[in-house]
This record gives sequence, structure tokens and C-alpha cells, in this order.
Amino acid sequence: MVNLKAKHIPRATISRLATYVQVLETFARDGVEVVSSHPLALASGVNASQVRKDLAYFGEFGIRGVGYNILSLIKAITSSLDVDREWRMALIGVGNLGKALLNHNDFRARGFNITAIFDCDPFKIGEIVQGLEVRCTSELPDMVAKLGIEIGIITTPPERAQRAADHLLGAGIMSILNFAPARIQAPAGVNVEYVDFFNHLYILAFKHTRQD
Amino acid sequence: MVNLKAKHIPRATISRLATYVQVLETFARDGVEVVSSHPLALASGVNASQVRKDLAYFGEFGIRGVGYNILSLIKAITSSLDVDREWRMALIGVGNLGKALLNHNDFRARGFNITAIFDCDPFKIGEIVQGLEVRCTSELPDMVAKLGIEIGIITTPPERAQRAADHLLGAGIMSILNFAPARIQAPAGVNVEYVDFFNHLYILAFKHTRQD
Repeated sequence: MVNLKAKHIPRATISRLATYVQVLETFARDGVEVVSSHPLALASGVNASQVRKDLAYFGEFGIRGVGYNILSLIKAITSSLDVDREWRMALIGVGNLGKALLNHNDFRARGFNITAIFDCDPFKIGEIVQGLEVRCTSELPDMVAKLGIEIGIITTPPERAQRAADHLLGAGIMSILNFAPARIQAPAGVNVEYVDFFNHLYILAFKHTRQD
Repeated sequence: MVNLKAKHIPRATISRLATYVQVLETFARDGVEVVSSHPLALASGVNASQVRKDLAYFGEFGIRGVGYNILSLIKAITSSLDVDREWRMALIGVGNLGKALLNHNDFRARGFNITAIFDCDPFKIGEIVQGLEVRCTSELPDMVAKLGIEIGIITTPPERAQRAADHLLGAGIMSILNFAPARIQAPAGVNVEYVDFFNHLYILAFKHTRQD
């Protein structure tokens, strides 16, 4: 198997690999052990030749005319992308969305653990949510160091997103997942990913109108 | 101004336009009236020549050496993308994430209104959340017709996402925003957008490891 850890993988490829993992996990849940590229392609919404090309990296798990061993392929993909280990995350903004993410079982199941939660609202500090104590953002650097936190999640209102990001950056966090509907300014080398509901709604609305 | 309603706009361009609207709204909130392409580019994380190219469609709002009138530009972009009107949405799956979205003020502020909510859990049916009664999915076709619902939102657990999609499709919904970590099978012509947290986490984890 090619060592992907040494390679650049384009963003679009990582996205498709993440989708394959999701689909393969569904197959595994249903008791399927081996899958060929066609059903994987169909379920992933990707064409079969693209699937075969993407999975060529993981050649040893594909047997011509038989298919891929599902559990081995999940392991190979997640290992190559470094998502087969625990990632500790801090969450800033313990509102409805923050609480919903804390309740989202799939994060922990996939090794993405929210291990510390923060809010600047004095009425929230000290509250226990899903076994975690809401802390003041001033405690962020200590908690990041103590717990080995690598990813920050922002679920504040938009007007407080930059301040939350500044707290994370100040604590040495280089990877941010932002759910607030606001853009974040961060120095080069810091990765910010946006979970942008409106982006998707704009695309749906545009396509909807065009197909009428 | 070019009539964008007659034109195809690539997905990536719609995404950038959605980002510009978000940034322009932030500027407007801060009392700014006119903006040139450089600060807009910086705040959007897009290079200035791309911004100018994207906004060339909206030429009359850009004055060379002065910039764009912010409110006019927001209006022109949202009008071209058909997001300057109300879009009525049904939500299936009134769990933590569903409730968080119902509490998300920005949806209504942007004209995306969740007007009916559904869950197949008999213990939830009849519950009132944010002024809306949780209904059985069997009522979906009637509510879609009665309320003029055009977009369906899925916030069920992954194993129930396809069934929720089938209910939406059965009620004639052609545009689906899926938050469940599962892929949806739908006939050609139906648009499904995925809000996929793990996709973003996989990209962050991959980049994080490479930059160490």
C-alpha cells in the first residue's frame, strides 16, 4: 500500500474518502462484509471509475471481481487520513447548537472527543453539560495544554465568533471548525473549516429555482 | 446588470457569493456603507481579483476607486440567487440538533423559515417546539401542500435518514438539506445537500497532521 501519510491529497479527494467511510460504515452496520466499487459508488453519489481511482491507493484491499473487504478498507482509509486515533476538541459557545453537538454520539464514536467546553456568559459558567463543566475562556490555554486539545469548535453567535477564534489562537490551537455564520480572520498556517448552513441553502434555492 | 436568473452559475461561485453576503452583512452591522474589493476579499478569504470577477455581474454597484454600496450589493446578489424571498421548510427529526436549528435565529432572518416539524417518535408527537407542533410524518404531504413547503431538512439519526428522505420525496419535496451522517438515495432531479461535520473534521485532521 502506498504510504499516503507522505503524500498530498487534494481536498476533494479527502471529502470523497470521508463519504466512502460513512457509506462503508452503513454497509458494515447492515452486516455486509465485502463490497464492489459499483454499490459503493451508487451509495456515495460518485461514479464507479472515480471510486476505483480513489481506492487504487488502497489496492491490497480490492480483489478484482470480488471487491473490497469493508472493515479493512475503513481501517486503511482512516489510518491514511490520521482519523483512526483520538482527536481532542474544545468547544466555545454552549448554546443550543453547542449542546446539540455535545449530544451527538457520532463524534465520540469516531474519535473526535469534545473534552472541554467554554462560554463567556457568567450564568453558564459552572453548568455541567454532558458531564463537562462550562468554563470561562480565560481557562482555555491551561485546559488545551492539560488535555492535549488540538481542534477548536466555535458555536457562538456570529458577532462573537472572532473573539472565540482569538481565544483559541491564543491558546495555540491551529485547527478550527466554525459553525457560527461569520468569517474568521486567522494567521497563515491556521486551518479554519466552515460548517455553513446558508451556503448549502443558497445552493438548494438556486438549483430549485432553475429546475422549475 | 446581467440577468443572472437566466444563467448557469457554478456551485463554487454560489458558495463564494453566499460568503460575500455573510461578510457584507457583518460590515453593514458595523455601520459600514461602502466597501472596496480588497477588504471584502480579505474578510472572505478569497483573493481580490476573484472577488472583482465574481462581482462583475453586479457591475453597477461597483464604482471604480470607491467600491460597492453594501446594501445594494447584498440586494443584488440575494435577488440573483433567489434568496431574497421566503423559503418554507419542513424539518424531520426533532432531536437536539433539530431543536438547535429551530432556535437558530439566522434562518428566519434570512427568509429560510421552518414552518412544520415532524418526528415518528410517538412520545414527541404533539410537543410544541418554538411555537410549532411536532407532527407524525404521515401528515407531511398535507402540510407541504397547505404551507407551500419547498425544502426538507433531515436531522434524524443516520439509520432513519433514508426513511425521512422517502417521506419528503413522497410529499413532492425536490430539495433536501441533510444533517444526518448518512447518504441519501434520491431520483434524478432531486437536489440533496449534505451538512457533513465529519467531512470538515477529516480535512482539519489531515491538514493538522501534515503541518506538524
